[in-house]
Amino acid sequence: MADRNGLESVRDRLQQAALELFQERGYDRTTAAGIAARVGVTERTFFRYFPDKRETLFGGEAVLREALTAAVAGAPAALGPLDTLFFAFRSTVPLLEGNRPFAEPRQAVVSSTPALHERELAKLEVLADALADALRGRGVKAQPAVLAARTGMAAFAHATIAWLDTPEPKLADRLDAVLGDLRQLLVAG
Amino acid sequence: MADRNGLESVRDRLQQAALELFQERGYDRTTAAGIAARVGVTERTFFRYFPDKRETLFGGEAVLREALTAAVAGAPAALGPLDTLFFAFRSTVPLLEGNRPFAEPRQAVVSSTPALHERELAKLEVLADALADALRGRGVKAQPAVLAARTGMAAFAHATIAWLDTPEPKLADRLDAVLGDLRQLLVAG
Repeated sequence: MADRNGLESVRDRLQQAALELFQERGYDRTTAAGIAARVGVTERTFFRYFPDKRETLFGGEAVLREALTAAVAGAPAALGPLDTLFFAFRSTVPLLEGNRPFAEPRQAVVSSTPALHERELAKLEVLADALADALRGRGVKAQPAVLAARTGMAAFAHATIAWLDTPEPKLADRLDAVLGDLRQLLVAG
Repeated sequence: MADRNGLESVRDRLQQAALELFQERGYDRTTAAGIAARVGVTERTFFRYFPDKRETLFGGEAVLREALTAAVAGAPAALGPLDTLFFAFRSTVPLLEGNRPFAEPRQAVVSSTPALHERELAKLEVLADALADALRGRGVKAQPAVLAARTGMAAFAHATIAWLDTPEPKLADRLDAVLGDLRQLLVAG
């Protein structure tokens, strides 16, 4: 993503360089120093932005978490917990679609590297916890809030990974379909 | 667990010793050699049972997976996907209750050690994939099978962790409650 001056930030360039090196050399053979060198900065600069090479692929999580929790807080009051979450998921579609050129190769690296995949699952859990808190902030009780958040996140992750795998149908349509499937599941038993 | 001769197997003793050492010394300061020494076997013997110290805490996953997938395959044909999963979850209650003396301290170690927690999440995902396969074996289509399995596993993990935290209500009652909450969630929107 470009910053407001139209220039790519050092942080963005480090993320992009890391992803390229993971693809070219493999995750294990890539170092923080190598990533810094590709961008033309020192290793010390690298560590000002990221604690380790792994985190270069998880910088988007905080952005997504803020967008989702803000959308949950701002969702129409009449919506139930699950509809609130899907309202929030839909609100991030432009963000996710804009990030697709990075997200698609990123997903390929993450899903083929166990250490990254485990990290991804932990980040999704943090996201689910944040959504549960946001639902509680709307007056949803603790247990249903946690259950809704975990169920919703499982469905959201399922939809986005399927969409990164195949761009059609569009992400918004996939989210609608997955919510429909979820309701169908509970009707069918 | 004791084997059919009433003797604890070396494998079980290694698991138990590992758990004790993780609690006493912390995970990072425990070695495979230290675990072997506590049981009175060689380090080489340790590695015949486990690839590393971490896996001592995940040996139960294969047992649970087999029990769950067998129960899915044997569930009454009339049950829908989610009811099939909960039928399977309920069938493992005696197994899980019998394993509680190990599972409760294990959960405390796993949830307080990020590397173990990430591993746990990955194992739960493998379990969800196995359940999705088992549902497909009953004729459920691919997408709903995956969604049901992920949603069901999220609810199952939620119920068992809450139960390990506080033994009452019983696990069977927690599973019924969580299924009720799940249905309520989809009705409420």
